[in-house]
Amino acid sequence: MKRVKLEVAYDGTGYHGWQFQPNAVTIEGVLNRHLSELLKEEIIVIGASRTDAGVHARGNVAVFDTAHRLPADKIYLALNQRLPADIRVQSSAEVGPDWHPRKQKCTKFYEYRISNRRVELPSERLYTHFCSYGADLEPMRRAAGYLLGEHDFKSFCSVKTQAESTVRTIYAIDIQSRDEIISIKISGNGFLYNMVRIVAGTLLQVGCGRIAPEKMAEILAARDRCKAGPTLAARGLTLIGMKYEKNS
Amino acid sequence: MKRVKLEVAYDGTGYHGWQFQPNAVTIEGVLNRHLSELLKEEIIVIGASRTDAGVHARGNVAVFDTAHRLPADKIYLALNQRLPADIRVQSSAEVGPDWHPRKQKCTKFYEYRISNRRVELPSERLYTHFCSYGADLEPMRRAAGYLLGEHDFKSFCSVKTQAESTVRTIYAIDIQSRDEIISIKISGNGFLYNMVRIVAGTLLQVGCGRIAPEKMAEILAARDRCKAGPTLAARGLTLIGMKYEKNS
Repeated sequence: MKRVKLEVAYDGTGYHGWQFQPNAVTIEGVLNRHLSELLKEEIIVIGASRTDAGVHARGNVAVFDTAHRLPADKIYLALNQRLPADIRVQSSAEVGPDWHPRKQKCTKFYEYRISNRRVELPSERLYTHFCSYGADLEPMRRAAGYLLGEHDFKSFCSVKTQAESTVRTIYAIDIQSRDEIISIKISGNGFLYNMVRIVAGTLLQVGCGRIAPEKMAEILAARDRCKAGPTLAARGLTLIGMKYEKNS
Repeated sequence: MKRVKLEVAYDGTGYHGWQFQPNAVTIEGVLNRHLSELLKEEIIVIGASRTDAGVHARGNVAVFDTAHRLPADKIYLALNQRLPADIRVQSSAEVGPDWHPRKQKCTKFYEYRISNRRVELPSERLYTHFCSYGADLEPMRRAAGYLLGEHDFKSFCSVKTQAESTVRTIYAIDIQSRDEIISIKISGNGFLYNMVRIVAGTLLQVGCGRIAPEKMAEILAARDRCKAGPTLAARGLTLIGMKYEKNS
């Protein structure tokens, strides 16, 4: 028996998110089915991040146990032969029998992309939120500064959250624009339900002049979802990856 | 009666190319239908570039005549309300009654994108050709140098071409790599059937060491399609736009 870690990239457009659902197509469901067929035993993966419907990933992490003799570092190649084109496992490797993707200290990296132009470009529509109102990066960067470090992010999470604590640490927020696409890269020790999409929605309102950058301190302190900006579309969000302190 | 010029962007994934076909969904067909409904008269557009099935565009150009009183520069806004999400007209403007998008001197700009990484990323798959074999840019740039200027590009066009002359002028080829995507930007006074995709396929073979850069002179001189590299996938190609000497 060995435990195998996968790094999974997917286009979330056609999926009802990561987590298995009996009556909907999910990333986890598709992985379980194809791994079970490949390894000829029932496989149930444990995912690091249960991304929402429509959210994309470059490097979500999952583990599973198998008794199959196929070497761990070859499994992703065989698996990719079976997977649909919108899921591609980037690597597979053996890890210790107790290694669990949600019980390790790690940094998560997300990117939120906003197409900021007069008229939408169709080839960007599946991977960006569209905003025709011109946004200024400098106020967005100043506003982002208020979010760095450890804070109670209750104002920036869906009221549907089930998290016991809403305290999280954001390590960095990098905001760049290129070819009229604003990229917000954000890393932290964990993110609450819808947190990145609400942070992006709030920063975009700052960029468009609807919220003053200094207002961020107040919004944080309020611990009230209504004070922050809107939850932007899932399609603009990509889980870039996770970096674990202990990799195996 | 006025003649209106449109700048049309589309995601070609779901279309059988630009040109109208009675039994297939095409960009031209969809534009004709929605323009006719909007302007309440039968509209038939004339396109600048009849892109192939699966090819994308940021700025293809089309014209049509209408007697409708809707100002020319407002038509694109009303039209975008009706079009499917994978077509977005970027602008509309009145032009002279004789202005024809294929009978004007112009420069055409194309981009061919290659995802050059070990394992494909699903969110790139609709807009790139995937090549897992690492390509070197320097030999590709040297090879591209041979194609600049006026040449007979018979080796670089589909044998199905109906063009009378296979002589064209390439003004520039710019090859860059970023985030493991190789972008080949090419501009010229016109391109033969499949020409950009064959040029990209040949340059990629040079990048992968299968064709020496100096061999390009020979391939050009042969005037034989078999001497050049493969025709790369349509999905990697985008018609960026056209620049007319006379704009209206």
